[in-house]
Amino acid sequence: MSLKFDLIATDGGARRGRVHTAHGDFETPAFMAVGTAATVKALTMDQVAATGTQVILGNTYHLMMRPGGDLVEKMGGLHQFGGWTGPILTDSGGFQVMSLSNLVKMREEGVEFTSHIDGGIKHFLRPEDSVHIQHQLDSNITMVLDECLHLPAPRDRVEKNVDMVTRWARRSRDAFVDRPGYGIFGIVQGADQPDLREKSARALVDIGFDGYAVGGLAVGEPQDVMFRMIAHTTPLLPMDRPRYLMGVGTPLDILGAVERGIDMFDCVMPTRAGRTAQAFTRHGTMNMRNARFRDDASPIDDGCGCPACKLSRAYIHHLIKCNEILGATLLTQHNLWFYQDLMRGIRGAIEQGRFAEFKKEFIENYTNKKIDND
Amino acid sequence: MSLKFDLIATDGGARRGRVHTAHGDFETPAFMAVGTAATVKALTMDQVAATGTQVILGNTYHLMMRPGGDLVEKMGGLHQFGGWTGPILTDSGGFQVMSLSNLVKMREEGVEFTSHIDGGIKHFLRPEDSVHIQHQLDSNITMVLDECLHLPAPRDRVEKNVDMVTRWARRSRDAFVDRPGYGIFGIVQGADQPDLREKSARALVDIGFDGYAVGGLAVGEPQDVMFRMIAHTTPLLPMDRPRYLMGVGTPLDILGAVERGIDMFDCVMPTRAGRTAQAFTRHGTMNMRNARFRDDASPIDDGCGCPACKLSRAYIHHLIKCNEILGATLLTQHNLWFYQDLMRGIRGAIEQGRFAEFKKEFIENYTNKKIDND
Repeated sequence: MSLKFDLIATDGGARRGRVHTAHGDFETPAFMAVGTAATVKALTMDQVAATGTQVILGNTYHLMMRPGGDLVEKMGGLHQFGGWTGPILTDSGGFQVMSLSNLVKMREEGVEFTSHIDGGIKHFLRPEDSVHIQHQLDSNITMVLDECLHLPAPRDRVEKNVDMVTRWARRSRDAFVDRPGYGIFGIVQGADQPDLREKSARALVDIGFDGYAVGGLAVGEPQDVMFRMIAHTTPLLPMDRPRYLMGVGTPLDILGAVERGIDMFDCVMPTRAGRTAQAFTRHGTMNMRNARFRDDASPIDDGCGCPACKLSRAYIHHLIKCNEILGATLLTQHNLWFYQDLMRGIRGAIEQGRFAEFKKEFIENYTNKKIDND
Repeated sequence: MSLKFDLIATDGGARRGRVHTAHGDFETPAFMAVGTAATVKALTMDQVAATGTQVILGNTYHLMMRPGGDLVEKMGGLHQFGGWTGPILTDSGGFQVMSLSNLVKMREEGVEFTSHIDGGIKHFLRPEDSVHIQHQLDSNITMVLDECLHLPAPRDRVEKNVDMVTRWARRSRDAFVDRPGYGIFGIVQGADQPDLREKSARALVDIGFDGYAVGGLAVGEPQDVMFRMIAHTTPLLPMDRPRYLMGVGTPLDILGAVERGIDMFDCVMPTRAGRTAQAFTRHGTMNMRNARFRDDASPIDDGCGCPACKLSRAYIHHLIKCNEILGATLLTQHNLWFYQDLMRGIRGAIEQGRFAEFKKEFIENYTNKKIDND
């Protein structure tokens, strides 16, 4: 294994760890800020780092389309290109091919698609191509190409999916060039079928990866189904490898997934919300466009140390009303700060063996509901 | 006088000074970043300060419409509202009433207008109202309300303008509440008529202001007319008061105006250019959208210390192509940094008695033309 992972502490199913990469370490449970096109939207990389973010995620689909893997490689890789010196994980491009492009055909060999970005030229992305592009990007953590099903899906469709993405995972593993401080993660599929999740997990562990993602969740299923699939999957994965729940999620999703043994998360939620006037606070979310904030001199969240919280809700509201870029910048930074505060809280609680208590307190504050029985 | 000004050095007509306000000092010649709606567009106030900007300009017209003088006052003034702790100058709103609103009527009493912002409600702005709103904003430097003519203008129109704005200036001076570290500037009008400029200047000096602006220039007239009007006006103004050329301008405008005794400038050019892919460099401007930057690994300007210049032209180009907010942020900060580098250079050169040499070198680099005779 080329990517070192230390498991520092556990508390029930929750794990406290550290991933070592060629571009520095990150503490787990970790929330990765989404930096789609070599930028975490509306922020400088210094502003991202100030939130406590230690690792960012790049989207291979967007980067292969613009500016292209060759260009990023020529510019010295994604770290140098975008100015983020810390660890970077890239997805495979598969999810966006299916959600953003015009999917032409899914074949055993790979996936054929067209994109509006380059005027509809036909592209073909094989597992080996995705690994190669992520290599060009100099990504510290490469994800295998997979096919993400929408839920619910018929069982025979899920079976075929698990078999094919297992073959793709092996091809990806073979194509990956091992380097110290770089790794490749497999992705467990199997939709909402426990036995197929198990089949997928065992096959990936057989191949052997630097870490394991739980994929194909948070795609429309109820939260309890997601939690059940996670709880079913994580015991099948090696203790000494990090586990990543892709595309998740809300603060409550994260708490429930950490409890079930997940170490890494990414989600557009805090950053996208920051561009649509939504602010996260310990007491839930607020729409800063709301007229009740017009003359509110208090900060968004008086427990927050971010630059936006040195200013008033009235000022943030004013910026939103005037469509000022700074509104998006301040709210995005605040929301990421909030997420990273949550992750710091989670990590500290696991170290102290009081994760369950932390989770209960957080949820009570966040939902403004007393929890009698957790 | 409630606003202290030290004249530190002179070099020909060029002056090196310092203005002391209740919110700190700023060095002159000074370039004020335009912070229209309590934000320098696309930047945090920390990012503005990092450029070397020491004083910002707020637009009374925008602020009176949104969020309103009462609200800003209630929030503790513009410094506290927007988080800029340094000196702030505000314009009177007069220029924007004429350029942005639907001007209904100009009368001796004041100006009547409607605005699209609030759905066409009728507003009436008298000189006293403008001073009062700027007081509510807690502006360190209040500007008198004036009427800015477009050039060319018929002589009798200019004569009437000078007479009326002189009466308005007196009303503004009377309405202004003197406080230590706060001041009010008169504005010399007179279009391109030297004798009317003289009449205006003498009348304003008789009233007595903390500083004097040269107004009604950079409104379409040739640069040599502007320079001639400045050269004609500044000797009529007291040596011990700062002089402000409103809404100017290009780097070459600034150099020519400093040479003729101007101490303060403001212009949307560097910030607006930053939102339209334009970058200022020592060798002229560049459009970063241009395809030739696609794979250019060099920084925008290798002599610049700003955050954008730690990254490549290729990256900036990529951000622009993808319409990423960070493109506007980085370019705006770069351009302001460039302007403040210019001002630092100007101030240093005046101190060393080599302003003429500095100007010649700068222009040769900037225009890529050798100057034989300056």
